[in-house]
Amino acid sequence: MPDRAPIPRDTEAKLEHILRHAANIFASRGFGASSIREISRSSGVSLSGLYYYFESKQKLLYLIQSNAFTSILQSLEARLEGVRDPQRRLLLFIQNHLEYFMEHPAEMKVLSHEEDAIEEPFRKELLSIKRRYYTLARGIFDELNRDGRAAHLSPRVAVLCLYGMMNWVYKWHNPKVDPGAAELAESMTGIFLHGVLNGSGRARPAAPGGNKP
Amino acid sequence: MPDRAPIPRDTEAKLEHILRHAANIFASRGFGASSIREISRSSGVSLSGLYYYFESKQKLLYLIQSNAFTSILQSLEARLEGVRDPQRRLLLFIQNHLEYFMEHPAEMKVLSHEEDAIEEPFRKELLSIKRRYYTLARGIFDELNRDGRAAHLSPRVAVLCLYGMMNWVYKWHNPKVDPGAAELAESMTGIFLHGVLNGSGRARPAAPGGNKP
Repeated sequence: MPDRAPIPRDTEAKLEHILRHAANIFASRGFGASSIREISRSSGVSLSGLYYYFESKQKLLYLIQSNAFTSILQSLEARLEGVRDPQRRLLLFIQNHLEYFMEHPAEMKVLSHEEDAIEEPFRKELLSIKRRYYTLARGIFDELNRDGRAAHLSPRVAVLCLYGMMNWVYKWHNPKVDPGAAELAESMTGIFLHGVLNGSGRARPAAPGGNKP
Repeated sequence: MPDRAPIPRDTEAKLEHILRHAANIFASRGFGASSIREISRSSGVSLSGLYYYFESKQKLLYLIQSNAFTSILQSLEARLEGVRDPQRRLLLFIQNHLEYFMEHPAEMKVLSHEEDAIEEPFRKELLSIKRRYYTLARGIFDELNRDGRAAHLSPRVAVLCLYGMMNWVYKWHNPKVDPGAAELAESMTGIFLHGVLNGSGRARPAAPGGNKP
């Protein structure tokens, strides 16, 4: 059954409402098999109401993806503000990523599954937001490696392995048995920095302070 | 343009041929938006020829997925035969996984994106193959942790973080700039066991022998 929450009147909030419904539909049927008509039915917004915000399914897919990346980047930049320690920055990066996508599983699925469905000029615009995010992650990795301790690894491979750990979570995370975002972020930071065999009994053996939430 | 490779006469080989074409179509259009007619056109096998092998799109999706998992499990079991050292077993596990999916990117995409599209009774059958694979990975992790050095981590979380690293590769791997499966497997084994900050300048600092291919 479609979720018949009241449609917000505010333009911005109404767009958020539409994007949420659209993400749910794209996530469950796939972009190719979804229609604007279904999104209208699910969101309760008329077709002409929808066309006020976007003129095509492509634009809609772009809005879902850019909206997600912009939100995640904004909250990350706020969290990292004034934090210098790179291990702490890494923890915050992972925590922010996990929190966002655990709260937005449909968006995560759309981002992951419909990456190839997006066409120009939207593809190029998304790439530039994604690049900003990657550059931030890569910067943290480079700071961690200031003393050359990770010099045996390709930084690109290392960062993309981290992405993999984080981005695969939507496939398996079961809130009934698995830890929440904060604890999961601690475990991942530990694995990424020191491996599973660090033997310390703690997730972040070498983290100097700043480990408290 | 559809690939018009000659259709094999042998029943088994013909099925492989069909599954490959079907995987490519499901990967590019999505399962929901693909039709058996397209698969017939692409593979060059008539509709009635296709129905000899499967009676529904669901069965076809099941065959693609079970075929992939069965192949990967078989080649893994052959590789692990007689290998005792758990670090070496982990390396082989990762290498086998990466090799298979780098050679079968369409199957990887279908496995990842169409996991929810599969219905009963196929879902249950796939789950049992997947469980065999997970049990194998989990067994390697438990051997690695025989001395309790990974006791601070949930084994489930650790294994699924490893899955994430491996399964995300299809999203970013660019053969022009990124290392091949063997080198990538070394890097991942190193990160998973000892973290990026192991500082050894080698991927597997603590691996006693058995590191050569």
